[in-house]
Amino acid sequence: MRYEELTIEGRNAVLEAFRSGKTIDKLFLLKGCQDGPIQTIIREAKKTDTILNFVTKERLDQISKTGKHQGVIAYSAAYEYANIEDLFHIAEKRGEAPFFILLDSIEDPHNLGAIIRTANLAGAHGVIIPKRRAVGLTATVAKASAGALNYTPVVKVTNLSRTIEELKEKGLWFVCADMNGDSMYQLNLTGPIGLVIGNEGEGVGRLVKEKCDMIASIPMKGEIDSLNVSVATGILAYEIVRQRMQ
Amino acid sequence: MRYEELTIEGRNAVLEAFRSGKTIDKLFLLKGCQDGPIQTIIREAKKTDTILNFVTKERLDQISKTGKHQGVIAYSAAYEYANIEDLFHIAEKRGEAPFFILLDSIEDPHNLGAIIRTANLAGAHGVIIPKRRAVGLTATVAKASAGALNYTPVVKVTNLSRTIEELKEKGLWFVCADMNGDSMYQLNLTGPIGLVIGNEGEGVGRLVKEKCDMIASIPMKGEIDSLNVSVATGILAYEIVRQRMQ
Repeated sequence: MRYEELTIEGRNAVLEAFRSGKTIDKLFLLKGCQDGPIQTIIREAKKTDTILNFVTKERLDQISKTGKHQGVIAYSAAYEYANIEDLFHIAEKRGEAPFFILLDSIEDPHNLGAIIRTANLAGAHGVIIPKRRAVGLTATVAKASAGALNYTPVVKVTNLSRTIEELKEKGLWFVCADMNGDSMYQLNLTGPIGLVIGNEGEGVGRLVKEKCDMIASIPMKGEIDSLNVSVATGILAYEIVRQRMQ
Repeated sequence: MRYEELTIEGRNAVLEAFRSGKTIDKLFLLKGCQDGPIQTIIREAKKTDTILNFVTKERLDQISKTGKHQGVIAYSAAYEYANIEDLFHIAEKRGEAPFFILLDSIEDPHNLGAIIRTANLAGAHGVIIPKRRAVGLTATVAKASAGALNYTPVVKVTNLSRTIEELKEKGLWFVCADMNGDSMYQLNLTGPIGLVIGNEGEGVGRLVKEKCDMIASIPMKGEIDSLNVSVATGILAYEIVRQRMQ
């Protein structure tokens, strides 16, 4: 799932995308342009309830990757999953130690979207989610990710504990978030790392937690039990960012 | 808005609260207890669609602040606003330098709730919001705050810039969040502080920003524009926590 594959530019390419049944998330059209091919594209877009954005030529030029948009650019739906190798590839390309975020059964699409958004900005190379008992890449997730799903790959795995084992063999260390862990400020979170976040109600599952090398807690100074899971992920991910920057 | 005022214990007190029209968020009743006064309370609760929780005596004892719950404890709705003095009072009581979070026109109730939740756990002494162009303490906010609204006071002010000026006279320093600021890791965020967060679309308004002593940015390593506002608040608030803990 690379960015280039998700931006479709030009009249024929966009029309072809619609006709092939590809889900289009957003369509950008040149304001005032009403010729035949554009009308056909609009008709196709309306069939699938695609959001239409009529924008200026300047805006289209800005969005365009090829410079040849012919007045129309589509963002195709970011529902494709990546594989683990893609994540390592991104880390390698950036010359960085791998930094993956693993989610143990996140159920709320807004939380998943916000976490992918955070993963993107914290410079994580990807997000790993389990196949079962977790929300997948729905349209709500894509929306809540604020575009991050176009850049940050998401991998779906059958068994999170087994994936952790495999990634350990490739040199990653795993830290899981848990109220009863050591203060995150006291742990060494540099190097190749997998940050494991539990679900909204129950936190990280026992089997997954047992695979982790470190358990990190966010200092809690208030009266209530827990942070919102996407906020907690942001705080932990940025502690990793801080330590990596030092 | 102090915690004590929001927990109502004992049969007469709870019944009186219902009859006086006070909004009750949650009602805890002793499981199996079915006598007259309890029946009356249940009837009143049903009139207002209050959520009933039948719990054990142990649980009630745990919730109880007075030890005299007589089988019934109510949480009254956390819709009351505090005033600035309450915030200073809490800081003083805890022997801490004031730490307030100011929100410039947050529009989404889930974001406001999540921020109040974060404020509670990061040990902030209160949240300050403007009267206009911002969401208030609705039921959705209360729910998203996961109970934090019962502990963390929220103050509503007419003019955020004027409030900042007044708080500066009381010794607070203000840091506002902005993409073009200095890295938050390089700023000194200890001491009496007000953290100013802008709204979802536009960030902190110009007038408010001009009043701030420091502009802090969260390092952004990805392709997209910005973090979710409640995630960003969490990351900044915890940078303050980290610096205070050192």
